[in-house]
Amino acid sequence: MTELEREIAEQPAVIDRLVSTQRDHARQIAEAIRAFDPAYVLIAARGTSDNAARYAQYAFAIHTGLLVALATPSVHTLYDSPPRMSRALVIGVSQSGQPEDVRQVIADARAQGALTLTITNDPESPLARAADWHIPLNAGKEKSVAATKTYTAELTAFALLAAALADDAEMWAALENLPAWAQTTLDHAASTSQWGQRYRYMERYAVIGRGYNYCTAFEISLKVKELCYISAEGYSEADFRHGPIATILPGFPVLVVAPAGRTFEQQRDLLVKLNERGAECLAVSNDSSLAALTQRVLPIPADVPEWLSPILSVMPGQVFAMNLAMMKGLPVDQPRGLTKVTNTV
Amino acid sequence: MTELEREIAEQPAVIDRLVSTQRDHARQIAEAIRAFDPAYVLIAARGTSDNAARYAQYAFAIHTGLLVALATPSVHTLYDSPPRMSRALVIGVSQSGQPEDVRQVIADARAQGALTLTITNDPESPLARAADWHIPLNAGKEKSVAATKTYTAELTAFALLAAALADDAEMWAALENLPAWAQTTLDHAASTSQWGQRYRYMERYAVIGRGYNYCTAFEISLKVKELCYISAEGYSEADFRHGPIATILPGFPVLVVAPAGRTFEQQRDLLVKLNERGAECLAVSNDSSLAALTQRVLPIPADVPEWLSPILSVMPGQVFAMNLAMMKGLPVDQPRGLTKVTNTV
Repeated sequence: MTELEREIAEQPAVIDRLVSTQRDHARQIAEAIRAFDPAYVLIAARGTSDNAARYAQYAFAIHTGLLVALATPSVHTLYDSPPRMSRALVIGVSQSGQPEDVRQVIADARAQGALTLTITNDPESPLARAADWHIPLNAGKEKSVAATKTYTAELTAFALLAAALADDAEMWAALENLPAWAQTTLDHAASTSQWGQRYRYMERYAVIGRGYNYCTAFEISLKVKELCYISAEGYSEADFRHGPIATILPGFPVLVVAPAGRTFEQQRDLLVKLNERGAECLAVSNDSSLAALTQRVLPIPADVPEWLSPILSVMPGQVFAMNLAMMKGLPVDQPRGLTKVTNTV
Repeated sequence: MTELEREIAEQPAVIDRLVSTQRDHARQIAEAIRAFDPAYVLIAARGTSDNAARYAQYAFAIHTGLLVALATPSVHTLYDSPPRMSRALVIGVSQSGQPEDVRQVIADARAQGALTLTITNDPESPLARAADWHIPLNAGKEKSVAATKTYTAELTAFALLAAALADDAEMWAALENLPAWAQTTLDHAASTSQWGQRYRYMERYAVIGRGYNYCTAFEISLKVKELCYISAEGYSEADFRHGPIATILPGFPVLVVAPAGRTFEQQRDLLVKLNERGAECLAVSNDSSLAALTQRVLPIPADVPEWLSPILSVMPGQVFAMNLAMMKGLPVDQPRGLTKVTNTV
């Protein structure tokens, strides 16, 4: 068994541990945020953690009214010109807690009097110790280069904060169900190794999401890139229609992330358009009506609320990318030319 | 002559007209922004205009200290949950001024008491009339589906605002030189049709920028996608090292946007790494030392300050994408399946 396979399988337990151990801590942090009353939220992150930050943009805006901006770290490091952040909640997210550029954003924010929070999987890391508050992911060491369990843990940490800020009993109840939903999702995804053979020789790939699942499109495409070295692009459904749809030739494989909810009709309409162009369509969804528009629907549980769906909808993509890499004989735990900790400035 | 060729060639005149006619207007708007004293800036845009917004993130942060967030329009449209924006300067950018989702963000912001500004190429469009302030691009009708002159005009509008907010004589002087620099850049770029033959059959393409030129990487990759239907990805240099670099096989064509300035050493180091992997490297730069690391350096003028370089560095990319489409026998003014006005919700 590879480390990656083990880490993907650990996700329900990691999520369970995080929800049960960090629930009260999230409430404390929410208290501090309410007292600070930020004008906006700024999140600094790279790679997979930046995709988690995209989730927070939707979860925070929709459930708490807080606008979330994504940081441009080079403004802090290469240009030495941090913008004014004194009225902001500034959050740094990193599995390793090592990136110097993310640490610099937090340090600049703290020096200006912003409220700061970091989310890492290493409570002894520089980033963990740089902020007023820290949420430890407690995911256990992640050995595979491609992040999986720390990504869904980061999303869960943001979901806990959203529930605490919204102070919403229904959201808390849904979070309690998350580990079971994650297990069901992974059980369904386990069959990819058979039907996935069809994609052994695909050379291009696009993944499209919107709203809460904008992050899912980016994260699945990143896993396919990292593990299979395939040009895989993630798009918002709206941005995709503004140009990149021109690249879709007959047979082009496109995965559409389309859970039930507010974005479903847009995503369904896009699938119709993609079918007209002869694209090869797959979907991650809990709406079986998409079967008629796709080669295959990768299922997530039917009763998942849309706001938590990204934590589950990425999982069939993780499994697909892993199995595709294995079919291709590629080293899934140590992709060519990548290191577990990437330190950028 | 195609419309696209004509519109690319018009850019020096469009920039000249915009600088001379909107200089005082930009100063007036800057006065209003200073009086409002926004906590942050929010920009709503799609496609090419969203790439222009990425430029504003750097130009505003570095020259005015204003943090710029990019809007998530579906929060306003599909989720009907606009975040709190009453302390923000909210800007909508669109060539056509038609997209309903961008208009909705501006309408929500205005209803909350935010200061609003729109930038369009049609002063009669819904978006132009939706805000407190409007900057008309005066670029003349853009007929080709792929935006070129309106993109550099949008960047120039943001540069004018940055100069007005910074109230910096050196910035104004540099803006006066911009039309001449643009003409020189286009004169150099005119030779692509010969050496560009080498890329007739390339199937994948990546463009990498950072800082001010993060937008350039996205915009050149979008032009190549729209005009040539090639999987072309834009990246920040830092994000690229966090995973996507795994996709670089020997011969993979990569264009690195590397003008002289604060990001140059990072970009140069990336070129060294790409050479080690056997990538086929091109650069847009005004530093001739990159010749040793690349097949070819696409030049921009030597004396351009880094903050204005994105307005020029995109031009060799526009010309490259156009010439590649022509070599492939593709219809450059009307790419397959795209329309000039894309209205998304």
